[in-house]
Amino acid sequence: MTENTQTQLHVPQNEIQLSDGSTFKTYRTAGSLCSHDDEFDYKVGINKLRKHWIEERLARGDENHSQMYYAKKGQITNEMRYVAIREGVSPEFVLNEIKIGRAIIPSNRNHPELEPMIIGKKFLVKINANIGNSALGSSIEEEVEKLRWSLHWGADTVMDLSTGKNIHETREWIIRNAPVPIGTVPLYQALEKVKGKAENLNIDIFIETLIEQAEQGVDYFTIHAGVLHDYVALTKKRITGIVSRGGSIMARWCLHHKKENFLYEHFDRINEVMKKYGVSYSLGDGLRPGCIADANDEAQFAELKTLGELTKKAWAEDIQVMVEGPGHVPLNLIEENMRLQNEICNEAPFYTLGPLVTDIAPGYDHITSAIGAAMIAWYGTAMLCYVTPKEHLGLPNKQDVKDGVIAYKIAAHAADVAKGHPGAKERDDLLSKARFEFRWEDQFALSLDPELARSYHDETLPQDGMKKAHFCSMCGPSFCSMHLTQELRKEEDERSLSKN
Amino acid sequence: MTENTQTQLHVPQNEIQLSDGSTFKTYRTAGSLCSHDDEFDYKVGINKLRKHWIEERLARGDENHSQMYYAKKGQITNEMRYVAIREGVSPEFVLNEIKIGRAIIPSNRNHPELEPMIIGKKFLVKINANIGNSALGSSIEEEVEKLRWSLHWGADTVMDLSTGKNIHETREWIIRNAPVPIGTVPLYQALEKVKGKAENLNIDIFIETLIEQAEQGVDYFTIHAGVLHDYVALTKKRITGIVSRGGSIMARWCLHHKKENFLYEHFDRINEVMKKYGVSYSLGDGLRPGCIADANDEAQFAELKTLGELTKKAWAEDIQVMVEGPGHVPLNLIEENMRLQNEICNEAPFYTLGPLVTDIAPGYDHITSAIGAAMIAWYGTAMLCYVTPKEHLGLPNKQDVKDGVIAYKIAAHAADVAKGHPGAKERDDLLSKARFEFRWEDQFALSLDPELARSYHDETLPQDGMKKAHFCSMCGPSFCSMHLTQELRKEEDERSLSKN
Ligand code: SF4
Ligand code: SF4
Repeated sequence: MTENTQTQLHVPQNEIQLSDGSTFKTYRTAGSLCSHDDEFDYKVGINKLRKHWIEERLARGDENHSQMYYAKKGQITNEMRYVAIREGVSPEFVLNEIKIGRAIIPSNRNHPELEPMIIGKKFLVKINANIGNSALGSSIEEEVEKLRWSLHWGADTVMDLSTGKNIHETREWIIRNAPVPIGTVPLYQALEKVKGKAENLNIDIFIETLIEQAEQGVDYFTIHAGVLHDYVALTKKRITGIVSRGGSIMARWCLHHKKENFLYEHFDRINEVMKKYGVSYSLGDGLRPGCIADANDEAQFAELKTLGELTKKAWAEDIQVMVEGPGHVPLNLIEENMRLQNEICNEAPFYTLGPLVTDIAPGYDHITSAIGAAMIAWYGTAMLCYVTPKEHLGLPNKQDVKDGVIAYKIAAHAADVAKGHPGAKERDDLLSKARFEFRWEDQFALSLDPELARSYHDETLPQDGMKKAHFCSMCGPSFCSMHLTQELRKEEDERSLSKN
Repeated sequence: MTENTQTQLHVPQNEIQLSDGSTFKTYRTAGSLCSHDDEFDYKVGINKLRKHWIEERLARGDENHSQMYYAKKGQITNEMRYVAIREGVSPEFVLNEIKIGRAIIPSNRNHPELEPMIIGKKFLVKINANIGNSALGSSIEEEVEKLRWSLHWGADTVMDLSTGKNIHETREWIIRNAPVPIGTVPLYQALEKVKGKAENLNIDIFIETLIEQAEQGVDYFTIHAGVLHDYVALTKKRITGIVSRGGSIMARWCLHHKKENFLYEHFDRINEVMKKYGVSYSLGDGLRPGCIADANDEAQFAELKTLGELTKKAWAEDIQVMVEGPGHVPLNLIEENMRLQNEICNEAPFYTLGPLVTDIAPGYDHITSAIGAAMIAWYGTAMLCYVTPKEHLGLPNKQDVKDGVIAYKIAAHAADVAKGHPGAKERDDLLSKARFEFRWEDQFALSLDPELARSYHDETLPQDGMKKAHFCSMCGPSFCSMHLTQELRKEEDERSLSKN
């Protein structure tokens, strides 16, 4: 039950050359993109890998383009085969995870440039980077550059959260240049269409916006359909109220009209768009806590229950779903989030923002949140939305994007290792072996940020010969413990040889 | 049973001025030091807070200067009273924790400048910063400056790991300027005395070094007495062998002489020095894992068992003990470290280095390790030894020291909050409230690094008026969710008013 079995799939990998001539291959989020391409012109767009796959389905007249739809029919798609190669599992395994809703491959039929990736707890933990201009800055070129930059450092998906000018065109060029799934929060653009007046929103404007964005090829939509009218009152005693932009917009609408959330009421109409284009849900947690005092409260868990209900509604229509989670949560309350989400949403992939484990370190929230992210990913969260050092303070620049992505690669990888994900630990072991054997260049090459590692080493010992030295400036030549151990082993070997 | 009850203790606190005129007071690691003192001359030394307390004991002819000795006699010392104020608990509580060995106040009788602090799982989680020159650099002045700098950012203790020139004099000026406990690894200096030849070490040279350093006022000594001869062979299959400098030196000595570790054999002689000066043990984990593949192995846990045995030996002589722990440990193996240490060492304070939860991010090991540190501190570790971004790559500079300290303040505070430590969450709540109310200056002031937070905010919105703005550049004016929530609450209030 495979489509196009003839198609030979080539999945680009990062190839790390080691000094013994061997090559370590690893997951490449940038796919076929090359960030060293100086001639890059975003107006050209990248290769359309899925063009023929999609054309075949359109020719056949498929009315649901969701991977879950195919999975339920038992059909192994090229997308499934592609991610199976990426993750080192069988296509059948992928199909089954998608069928039961425990994993998703976000893939809009109008995003042929996509090199498919899978989000689910049985696969590598993924990370998302947010980009997009706000009213206060940045051009289309800059945003496409942020996309490429975040993929270079390891983002698995990118959300375009633009709210400023040129919102349609910015999105267009992001998608045309994205080998990864692109997510959006369509509510932002809908709000622009009613000139920022939340009360003037309605389902028609919203659906119109959905279609506009689905047409462009957005792969997953954050939909805040769980912010029910009655839940808003539950946030009254909170310190930071509602901190999700989408959540606060919908709360405003509900209270103004004294009506139920129109996204919830008209969920069926949204389903129709999702199906037609194969867009996945990212059910938004509009009532996530914005500080640790508000974590795991009634409002948050009331919404989660509704997200569980909506998950099942979407699944009934064969639409892929992931569920968004917090936010700000102290260490001792993290596990409960994962446990409840698992129960309530029947293991639909969890997609959390951090969580930040303390509120006292603005400027370092990539770190406060990487702590919570590593932990919740180990517990089973499938994708982590990054937080940059600028969180709460301003729009991230390129350096912030990089710092956020790297902190989250660390969190995701730490979880993969702890979960015993096949192959995850191999890179750690190779790097540690290189470290022990003073193969400095190999240590740098295997690290998440080779240039930084090298520059730190070279700050004190820049001479070429020092790349073979059996010490560095941290402990110095006579106190390098790894050198001492090596000497020890050598002597031991000589002793045991002379005994024989 | 209190000494000098008349003494009025003044405990300096950090005072954060808020815009409503109130002051938030918090633990001040720098104590009476002021880092803004431009005229600072390290050759003067700081105030000797404990001078009279110690003189009284010397006059009385006390032969054991350990706080455990006094605790077991039921005597509340000024040190106990001092830390009780710092931690907001009763002196009786402090006395009991010290008596049962669950907490220590490292305090050499020759370090009168010390402003006492306590290390134990029932108290605030502490962090240690390592300073000290290696053969490859830095002057005494620079090292004293690193001490003051790390205290300014929040280090609770500092270890002087100097191995280079002027080792004695550097230590002297560090101690004379340290309001916090200073720890050392005396083995480093002992090795210098035998010109780097580990096999020439012996207990006499070691004791001579111990006395030299105890005379200067070192408050705790890392002693690698748990690296037994038979354990060395257990490290053979490891990827990174022995990565503790002290561990590798002792392993070398044992194998060369085919004899038992002389620190273990002559532990009683070491005890005598500890008692006489009131120095605390930091029982070194010479066999800690240096990569995640080596975590929780036989060698590591064999040594831990011996550390448990030594803990009880020291306690029998009323000497305070903490126990050092790893290192590199994947998330799923962290809890076992804490559980075993608790059991084997009867809850003697655990003092861990990180642990780093992955090996693949040299250059970012303050982050990889802050993740493990937060988790293990939540499980009960009493003190966290920081790791800087330069770990494995070179000697940290000032910026690295700051980055390491802040990452560890985050980890320690996150654990305090998760453990429900009284008052810990208050700062988070105040900051979040300030954030929600757009009191930008208060948000900055309450953060761990006010200057950085402000500079990040000002990068896009430097105008003075923006410090009162109801948004920042992250989401922009029309998408600031906190502003939207505030509007919502205002409208709700008006509506309910008009109903009445
Ligand atoms: S000197 Fe220290 S940090 Fe540098 S390679 Fe040797 S053991 Fe590692
Ligand atoms: S604009 Fe966004 S980040 Fe800035 S204060 Fe408002 S909610 Fe917070």
